[in-house]
Amino acid sequence: MEIKVLKDILGANEQIAERNRQLLNGDNVFAVNLMSSPGAGKTSLILSTIKSLQGKVKVGVIEGDVSSSVDAETVGKEGVPVVQINTGGGCHLDANMVSNALSSVPLSDIDLLLIENVGNLICPAGFALGEHRKVLVSSIPEGDDKPFKYPSMFHEVDVVVLNKIDLSPYLNFDTSVFSQAIKGINDKAEIFPVSCTTGQGIEQWVSWLIAQMKKR
Amino acid sequence: MEIKVLKDILGANEQIAERNRQLLNGDNVFAVNLMSSPGAGKTSLILSTIKSLQGKVKVGVIEGDVSSSVDAETVGKEGVPVVQINTGGGCHLDANMVSNALSSVPLSDIDLLLIENVGNLICPAGFALGEHRKVLVSSIPEGDDKPFKYPSMFHEVDVVVLNKIDLSPYLNFDTSVFSQAIKGINDKAEIFPVSCTTGQGIEQWVSWLIAQMKKR
Repeated sequence: MEIKVLKDILGANEQIAERNRQLLNGDNVFAVNLMSSPGAGKTSLILSTIKSLQGKVKVGVIEGDVSSSVDAETVGKEGVPVVQINTGGGCHLDANMVSNALSSVPLSDIDLLLIENVGNLICPAGFALGEHRKVLVSSIPEGDDKPFKYPSMFHEVDVVVLNKIDLSPYLNFDTSVFSQAIKGINDKAEIFPVSCTTGQGIEQWVSWLIAQMKKR
Repeated sequence: MEIKVLKDILGANEQIAERNRQLLNGDNVFAVNLMSSPGAGKTSLILSTIKSLQGKVKVGVIEGDVSSSVDAETVGKEGVPVVQINTGGGCHLDANMVSNALSSVPLSDIDLLLIENVGNLICPAGFALGEHRKVLVSSIPEGDDKPFKYPSMFHEVDVVVLNKIDLSPYLNFDTSVFSQAIKGINDKAEIFPVSCTTGQGIEQWVSWLIAQMKKR
């Protein structure tokens, strides 16, 4: 008699993530997993991206939060389909939560799915959702030492969007320290400095995103 | 035959936390658990607090980080005893980690122990360390909606230090929305607006801290 006690949770998650990716591919939907600290500007970046892509790319959004639906309400005003996931205390999204949410997303009507993860620089890094790219939204007020302190997250991502550069004049943030620290952990990640408030840099970020969609 | 499979992890943590508290009480040391998002300013608040208490209260520090010892090095320059805990991926401190660290803290030489938790607004909320008070460092750039999104953390704490108020002129942060949201979750928590950069509000925060130390 064989008794299986331990389950490979991350392995099971990978399998569901792969199923999500197949489902998305079937409808030709490109999915992005947006991660960050609380308040770095994931929702603001989603709003800026939707506006910038208007008339060109049809966007859908999954909002992940421990609690509340404030972000889904904000994004919903832009006229795009939004599904809210509340983790009820959980510190990250997982592939199964996204799988459940996908059944409420009109996949045949969209080209790009932006998945906003729970605000947390640690736990979401280990959990694939079925995304095609992982994006980290960092921000100037958090400080240039974050790559040293949260290396797993910076290691995992395809791109770092450095938000709130409009606040640079008022803070001691050394962009070269930040970039060098990321290079030491992840030499492939591109960095896009942006301000969702002023719009600076959004065009470059969106161009990158469109190029990735073509590439897959 | 009785087989115990499940362990009450939080219960075990509470027991070790209580042992830590007894140890601290034995040396008349008051301990504070500082929690926040990454980059909200826990280390800056510790530095401001050490400076403000110089010659009055002897401070020791435990630094909790996933990785690196940059904060411990910064705090160590102030001439206070510092112990670094690296969780190696773990998303919060627990009572056992603090118990191990306490053996390296010169308890008989200090009055106040500041424990900087891992930067995370979710996971640290559930884990007592043996502290006498829980402090949340929030910051203006994170936005006034954080209490809605991370209610457990705001529910747990004795006080909220709202840092980076020097950035208020450049951001849409509504202090009354923030305060009201906290009141709805935790009607006991006091809120201290501060700027660790300009020093504004630090005196009020430190006065509160000294009053708590007398009260226990």
